[in-house]
Amino acid sequence: MQWQTIATQKQQALKASIPPEWTIPVSLLPAADQADVTAFLTQSGWFTDQELQIISMDAGQTLRRIAQKEWSSEEVTRAFCKAAAAAHQLTNCLSEIFFDEAISRAKDLDVHLQQNGKVTGPFHGLPISLKDNFNIIGKDATIGFTSLANQPASVNSVLTDLLLASGAVLYVKTNVPTAMMIAETVNNLFGRTVNPRNRNLTSGGSSGGESALIAFGGSRIGVGTDIGGSLRIPAACTGIFTLRPSFGRFPNIGTRSGLAGQEAVKSVNGPLAQTLQEVTLYTKTIIDQEPWLLDPNCVPIPWRVVERKPVLKLGVLWNDGVVTPTPPVTRALRETVEKLRRAGHQIIDWAPTGHLEAEALLAKKFLADGGKSVRRLLEPTGEPFRPEMWRYEQAQELGVHEMWQVHLSRNDVLKAYLDRWNSHDLDGLITPTTPYSSVEHGKFTYVGYTGVFNILDYPAVSFPCGIKADKALDVVQDWKPLSPTDELVNSTYNAEAVDGMPVSLQLVGRRLEEENVLMMVDVVLDSCKG
Amino acid sequence: MQWQTIATQKQQALKASIPPEWTIPVSLLPAADQADVTAFLTQSGWFTDQELQIISMDAGQTLRRIAQKEWSSEEVTRAFCKAAAAAHQLTNCLSEIFFDEAISRAKDLDVHLQQNGKVTGPFHGLPISLKDNFNIIGKDATIGFTSLANQPASVNSVLTDLLLASGAVLYVKTNVPTAMMIAETVNNLFGRTVNPRNRNLTSGGSSGGESALIAFGGSRIGVGTDIGGSLRIPAACTGIFTLRPSFGRFPNIGTRSGLAGQEAVKSVNGPLAQTLQEVTLYTKTIIDQEPWLLDPNCVPIPWRVVERKPVLKLGVLWNDGVVTPTPPVTRALRETVEKLRRAGHQIIDWAPTGHLEAEALLAKKFLADGGKSVRRLLEPTGEPFRPEMWRYEQAQELGVHEMWQVHLSRNDVLKAYLDRWNSHDLDGLITPTTPYSSVEHGKFTYVGYTGVFNILDYPAVSFPCGIKADKALDVVQDWKPLSPTDELVNSTYNAEAVDGMPVSLQLVGRRLEEENVLMMVDVVLDSCKG
Repeated sequence: MQWQTIATQKQQALKASIPPEWTIPVSLLPAADQADVTAFLTQSGWFTDQELQIISMDAGQTLRRIAQKEWSSEEVTRAFCKAAAAAHQLTNCLSEIFFDEAISRAKDLDVHLQQNGKVTGPFHGLPISLKDNFNIIGKDATIGFTSLANQPASVNSVLTDLLLASGAVLYVKTNVPTAMMIAETVNNLFGRTVNPRNRNLTSGGSSGGESALIAFGGSRIGVGTDIGGSLRIPAACTGIFTLRPSFGRFPNIGTRSGLAGQEAVKSVNGPLAQTLQEVTLYTKTIIDQEPWLLDPNCVPIPWRVVERKPVLKLGVLWNDGVVTPTPPVTRALRETVEKLRRAGHQIIDWAPTGHLEAEALLAKKFLADGGKSVRRLLEPTGEPFRPEMWRYEQAQELGVHEMWQVHLSRNDVLKAYLDRWNSHDLDGLITPTTPYSSVEHGKFTYVGYTGVFNILDYPAVSFPCGIKADKALDVVQDWKPLSPTDELVNSTYNAEAVDGMPVSLQLVGRRLEEENVLMMVDVVLDSCKG
Repeated sequence: MQWQTIATQKQQALKASIPPEWTIPVSLLPAADQADVTAFLTQSGWFTDQELQIISMDAGQTLRRIAQKEWSSEEVTRAFCKAAAAAHQLTNCLSEIFFDEAISRAKDLDVHLQQNGKVTGPFHGLPISLKDNFNIIGKDATIGFTSLANQPASVNSVLTDLLLASGAVLYVKTNVPTAMMIAETVNNLFGRTVNPRNRNLTSGGSSGGESALIAFGGSRIGVGTDIGGSLRIPAACTGIFTLRPSFGRFPNIGTRSGLAGQEAVKSVNGPLAQTLQEVTLYTKTIIDQEPWLLDPNCVPIPWRVVERKPVLKLGVLWNDGVVTPTPPVTRALRETVEKLRRAGHQIIDWAPTGHLEAEALLAKKFLADGGKSVRRLLEPTGEPFRPEMWRYEQAQELGVHEMWQVHLSRNDVLKAYLDRWNSHDLDGLITPTTPYSSVEHGKFTYVGYTGVFNILDYPAVSFPCGIKADKALDVVQDWKPLSPTDELVNSTYNAEAVDGMPVSLQLVGRRLEEENVLMMVDVVLDSCKG
């Protein structure tokens, strides 16, 4: 079957999987040109107070209420299914919908709790959304390829098993870009996911179905993946929180990749959520399940309680030497640093030494198979390369010997960066997550700010810093392009288009010290409030 | 310069670096056809009682004596230099000799201790030998290639720095096979290292200079590396102890590799020693130095105190489905298992599921660059491929896409092995380290028993089990070849040649659980004694 037919049918099937009662009445549907749809939940009148209470509740609270039988998992699940259905109808954020199974499971969990008096696991009854590339038995995991549609998984990803064993309720999978290798969420199978805060802007990629869903309010905790920024970019574009962990803290085996077997830079997964508390809750809970017993590539590091460090020594990366952040981001970073200084933290300027090299290595690694992996997923259905993926179309395959030289260069970058970090005795780095607050569809062109930490494998939290783009303040001034990419990014900056969008920053810590990074973001947020 | 000239000159320079007083008098030199030279130290009369006491002392004791000023580092260092000089003259085990610098450093350390009243670090004053591929500023690291001779390192390996910062005295580097990719120790630059227990046999490879030196008595603790068995094979061939750790416990960055940049299976380093106590001492000491602050690829797992488990559940691998262990090894394994059963341990038979696949993956990974890395190190001096390396000469380079498929196959093996381990709730595996006790030069042809655990990245200790090959007992019986390789290994088995050689076994634990493996070997050794 040709790709267009598959796409049409799959989209229809997806639409049909939303039951009539959760299809938004035409009378309530926002106009197609309404940019911000985040108020739909509270202002459409389509949701009950109880539903709104559930979906706005911190996930930890919800778990306690379920465990104490104040709420049933079924009512919680129904509320999230309805909110997710709305999110999809307004942002096109989902790739798989299985509300019936979710509600059935929720009922089973409720019965278990009634009968046994205790929960099945730490996520008992909580709906958790998953990015498309996690395998769930019986569900597609297309990663945006028409050739992978209608091929339901026969085995769960290890993370899927772990979440189910922990009592979570799975109810939706979320959209991704083709092969998960575009920084926006668009593919030839499902089309484009848009940003619920401004539908003219991207929700980022590749975990951009997830970020749209969560920013809208259709999920409290979702799981995405990140190989060059795919958690942090969508979190930043939609103003939510995420943790990109170092490789080995969370189980990753059995997930689908667009570049299967590529290991020179390793994909990791992590939570997206509206609050840091929920990101931390998820992280601790997963690690407490000892994922190294399930995934041979996980490291046996238990959750470590770290003491709160009231005064931090942070390096601030004003720019990465390649691309100047757009004006709202530079202002947000400056204002945040000022607040941190006032709160007594020690802030030093951090030079982008090694960043250009890391960015070049990242691109080389992704393209090292000459685009073969992607091409082989496009060919069966005659699906064309998307224009955003022209590099994959043109790439030349490397031989293994050249790849080994790439590994050597990477190790030089790693060692030099670690030595420099040590020489300043840093606690962490604070950097832009991306050069953008968000950006208009098709304009996201630079992932270097996130990608460098994939090469380094340092944990990083992207967090909304509380500052919003302001077209009056955020005008281009004194900008001299650092590179042709900078020219591209900043010459297309549109203050009007991004006006009002939240700006996120990234806090980066030492490799495999996720607990420290989470603690530091908490300290930073307190300082920003104060 | 042509390779033969370089080799001749380098060997002469090495010989000349042994001072006249430590050149064995011709009258004391064992006959060239004397097989076992291990008694030379105690029976030649060339060593003083004090020297013999020093070199036979457990390294932990020696450190205490130095710290308490009972012995000076200088006298300890001189004793080991002399013993190492003897070892080299009898087994050709060294590649670099720098006794003057070692003695000078030892004197400095003695002065420091005198003046400050405390040691400089946990290895204060102890001579530690290093395999050739660790970089030491000013010394060659040829890894057996004539093209790399006379190119002294300008930067230390991270481990070198760590050992020096810990107070160790470096005095020799030890010989390796070409590119460290032969299971015996022979190259075109330095020639062949022989086994001090029987010079007609190999000391194994690739850390076979190290194993010969330690088995002879010229070092208490040496450091080697292992990518397919290169620590365990030489330890087994010479009847000493070693730990192959999982990747990331010990710092590895800045060491020289014959396949530089090859990361699909990762080289690790670890200690070789005459006793388990010394292996444990080294392991704990290195980890206590927090190597993850120095090597970006180390994992931040501190030394974990584990409780002694008096009853172990062990799987026993009688054969790996490819090669039947030679008779002394099978008998040693059988007798050891009997002792363990009598001591109350639970022993189950362990099938070699996945071993053949792992072995095939290992070979494919080593050869993936089509032998380019090796060829480029041979060409500058016209050095030929050694016959043992014919696979590298004939290999075809893989493209990156095919390599990615290799990674996927490897992940399948890893996951299946972990699941099987979990399903039996094993503490560890006990297996032959190699199919041989030791073997005549040129006959070591199979590394599957060690290599599988490089693919799996499980920690493994090779330990002499106390049983020796016995030509009267160890005759081939009921042997049906499992494969052509088995045919090769067992049809050339020579009971006469290996008579009296110690047999080693391998105890394997879960990934990154080095502390558990060391504990379990201690329990096993106690059970074998009892």
